[in-house]
Amino acid sequence: MNFTAKNIADFTNGEIIGNPDEVVHDISRIEEGKKGTLAFLANPKYEKYLYNTKASIILVNRELVVNGNIKPTLIRVSNAYNAFTSLLELYAGSLADKTGIEQPCFIDPTAEIGRNVYVGAFAYIGPKAVIGNNVKIYPQSYVGEGTKINDNTILYSGVKIYHNCIIGSNCIIHSGSVIGGDGFGFVQQDDMQQRKIPQLGNVIIEDYVETGSNVTIDRATIGSTIIRKGVKLDNLIQIGHNVEVGENTVIVAQAGIAGSTKVGENCMIGGQAGLAGHIKVGDKVKIGAQSGVTNSIKPGETVLGSPALNASKQVKAMVVYKSLPEMYKRITELEREIALLRKEEK
Amino acid sequence: MNFTAKNIADFTNGEIIGNPDEVVHDISRIEEGKKGTLAFLANPKYEKYLYNTKASIILVNRELVVNGNIKPTLIRVSNAYNAFTSLLELYAGSLADKTGIEQPCFIDPTAEIGRNVYVGAFAYIGPKAVIGNNVKIYPQSYVGEGTKINDNTILYSGVKIYHNCIIGSNCIIHSGSVIGGDGFGFVQQDDMQQRKIPQLGNVIIEDYVETGSNVTIDRATIGSTIIRKGVKLDNLIQIGHNVEVGENTVIVAQAGIAGSTKVGENCMIGGQAGLAGHIKVGDKVKIGAQSGVTNSIKPGETVLGSPALNASKQVKAMVVYKSLPEMYKRITELEREIALLRKEEK
Amino acid sequence: MNFTAKNIADFTNGEIIGNPDEVVHDISRIEEGKKGTLAFLANPKYEKYLYNTKASIILVNRELVVNGNIKPTLIRVSNAYNAFTSLLELYAGSLADKTGIEQPCFIDPTAEIGRNVYVGAFAYIGPKAVIGNNVKIYPQSYVGEGTKINDNTILYSGVKIYHNCIIGSNCIIHSGSVIGGDGFGFVQQDDMQQRKIPQLGNVIIEDYVETGSNVTIDRATIGSTIIRKGVKLDNLIQIGHNVEVGENTVIVAQAGIAGSTKVGENCMIGGQAGLAGHIKVGDKVKIGAQSGVTNSIKPGETVLGSPALNASKQVKAMVVYKSLPEMYKRITELEREIALLRKEEK
Repeated sequence: MNFTAKNIADFTNGEIIGNPDEVVHDISRIEEGKKGTLAFLANPKYEKYLYNTKASIILVNRELVVNGNIKPTLIRVSNAYNAFTSLLELYAGSLADKTGIEQPCFIDPTAEIGRNVYVGAFAYIGPKAVIGNNVKIYPQSYVGEGTKINDNTILYSGVKIYHNCIIGSNCIIHSGSVIGGDGFGFVQQDDMQQRKIPQLGNVIIEDYVETGSNVTIDRATIGSTIIRKGVKLDNLIQIGHNVEVGENTVIVAQAGIAGSTKVGENCMIGGQAGLAGHIKVGDKVKIGAQSGVTNSIKPGETVLGSPALNASKQVKAMVVYKSLPEMYKRITELEREIALLRKEEK
Repeated sequence: MNFTAKNIADFTNGEIIGNPDEVVHDISRIEEGKKGTLAFLANPKYEKYLYNTKASIILVNRELVVNGNIKPTLIRVSNAYNAFTSLLELYAGSLADKTGIEQPCFIDPTAEIGRNVYVGAFAYIGPKAVIGNNVKIYPQSYVGEGTKINDNTILYSGVKIYHNCIIGSNCIIHSGSVIGGDGFGFVQQDDMQQRKIPQLGNVIIEDYVETGSNVTIDRATIGSTIIRKGVKLDNLIQIGHNVEVGENTVIVAQAGIAGSTKVGENCMIGGQAGLAGHIKVGDKVKIGAQSGVTNSIKPGETVLGSPALNASKQVKAMVVYKSLPEMYKRITELEREIALLRKEEK
Repeated sequence: MNFTAKNIADFTNGEIIGNPDEVVHDISRIEEGKKGTLAFLANPKYEKYLYNTKASIILVNRELVVNGNIKPTLIRVSNAYNAFTSLLELYAGSLADKTGIEQPCFIDPTAEIGRNVYVGAFAYIGPKAVIGNNVKIYPQSYVGEGTKINDNTILYSGVKIYHNCIIGSNCIIHSGSVIGGDGFGFVQQDDMQQRKIPQLGNVIIEDYVETGSNVTIDRATIGSTIIRKGVKLDNLIQIGHNVEVGENTVIVAQAGIAGSTKVGENCMIGGQAGLAGHIKVGDKVKIGAQSGVTNSIKPGETVLGSPALNASKQVKAMVVYKSLPEMYKRITELEREIALLRKEEK
């Protein structure tokens, strides 16, 4: 990376305040800026750092009013955060790209492999698997029999995808994630033993999905567990069998969704939240971190707490909850007062 | 799969209502039935689908009363769910079976390998490990030194089992599970550093246990962490060192059990529940999802919530919890009323 | 292992009560003692086992008063627990040590490999990676491009470390842990799609850190996610991007820390606790199991519950919470009484 302020202004359609020849070779956060780095300022909370950062160039919003002396060269753009993200993308895209088949790897003779793929050492591609163009399969990953990975998708090291699953195009699956393991289905027998229900369905992940590390997505008992286009899953998330997650829904780390639950589009599910099985979560629902959702939720609602309540109700109850010891005392005092009144009355 | 209604009725001891020559080649859920598929109806909630499903054959309970016209051929059996499960097992058993030693894999010369095993590519079997008959070790799995895997057990891709552990017969361990990692034991020293306590015990998993994906079961400090016969663990579960889980107990995803806790037989532990260390959970205990169990639980009890209370107490408290803001107002109103009464009294 | 009481007394600076030639060849817990084993007694709760254990030698605290007949040889030391730990360390150190390069493994020609290392079969060491002296990389582990592993560190089987990360010396990383996966950063676009923010930072783990199995530690967006010296992480923990965890802090299984949060030194974080992003947790803070921390915490404070409150406040509220149904009835009764008083007054 080696950009001048002029390069950056041209790329971001920005206006330079300062030296157009200022050079940056790395990026930094504004509060940790060093000479030769590019930073950005979008959140007003961080404005204070503008006046003493050592970063050489700062991307700022066009409407920012500067209240003091500043040393770095500024580039004013319409949206500093988006412009910075675009520069990060440019930079990321310039990094070395993996390609080719490393040895030893295992590619079953009946598997189909697309053009321009990367297959890392110790990767395993099972019988009748289909690998699209430009797919990257990092070392020690596993693609089961009959599973299809569409174009431009990346499986990082140690991803495990069981048989007969479908992964869309332009997906990113981070290390240690397991897709297509058996759903958790047992029937208790009269002697208390749990009899396994064979899990004969699969997992379908649509395009532009990203899953974090060590995520688990179980295959359906019958039919498919489905992760729709554009869904983003953080690390260590559990998706049960026959679940469906709607387009562009975002789920934060360590959340879990039990079997057969349907989550709508554009939802936000907080970290460590848990959703019971067989419920329906509408579109644009927000579920707070650590919530325990036991019932279906209407579109657009925000819920919090365990068990989850409508957020405004929950917040009110949480506020009063802190006063419980005081309330208890007040009730006891009221009872004393009443007893006194009654006595005096006689 | 290619069955006629007659085949299925013979296998399930059922009675055909409709065409005995109707053919199915796949399975479906009744609400997603397609021509040529077999479905079942056990839960009365789903009866409505019976009247418009496109599935060709439906397994139903013998006592079902049909209230309308239906197109599929019915097969009446004594328990539709069990009969369907038996058919799934038959179908699953007919799928291709892995066997043989794929290359390259690593089998230490001192390891003992049984008859009719599958060892996938890039699997690692350490010194003095013992692998029983009909065991399947999928690619990229690891069996540490001296570990024994008994007959008919399956380790899916990427399972890691540390040294000196014992895995029973007829077990299924899903991808990414780690068995026998060090227990979490440290002693804080005077300088605040944490000194590691060596973890010299092991893990013993008895027969017919199934663990989900990315489960972690730590080895004992001394002695054994024990998972008894028939236990079923879902994904992403944490089992601490020296824990013991009793026969046929079922634990749902993302639950965790801290060190030295003993869980009885035939318990049900909900998803994301947490059990403190050094406690004793009796037989047939039910623990709700997201519960936080800090004390021992008597046999047969059901507990809920964090901290966990007896379920009936907890449910009552939860109901009232929602009314906290109203209660607060009522207390304030009562105080106002009392002040008024006292004033009037004077 | 084959020690006499005299050997052990010499090593632990202890005093023998009984037979100095008593021999032990294994260790046990006092409650499970067998002939030929060494056990210890530190916690007075376990004293009852002293009188019927079958262990041959017991390490006890110097000040222990024995109230009855005992069969084993005792060794009195100043701290039985520490002495036992030292013996465990001695024993653990005597176990066979892995060394050498197993084949097949993948070591990029541009990687630097130190002296006396172990590289297991199917391990992958990427371009320009640097592996220190005495490092052990177990089978099927992955070390990304440019990543540095310092001296004496152990990566157990199936650890995945992405590119450009730094792991300190004397660290232990258990199986299935993923270090350096992308942070969870997306910006919602006007069409509701989530645009990925490239994650260009890294993870730095300092010396003497231990992480459990299937832990995930995300790389920073910019800069570094930092785990300071002596931190101990249990299994299945999530550490978000740009988080910093202070020296000697201990975090129990399944806890999660969201992005950019800073945790101080010598903290204790309980199992399944969750910390929101962008907060600051002071030194010596204690966070109870399953807590939900949404705000910064002052040094030395103890918090509990979700949402987390100061522990003494939370405990008081929790106690009263159980009485909610009773409180509700008492309020209703008070209202009845007041109505009655008012009526009588007229």
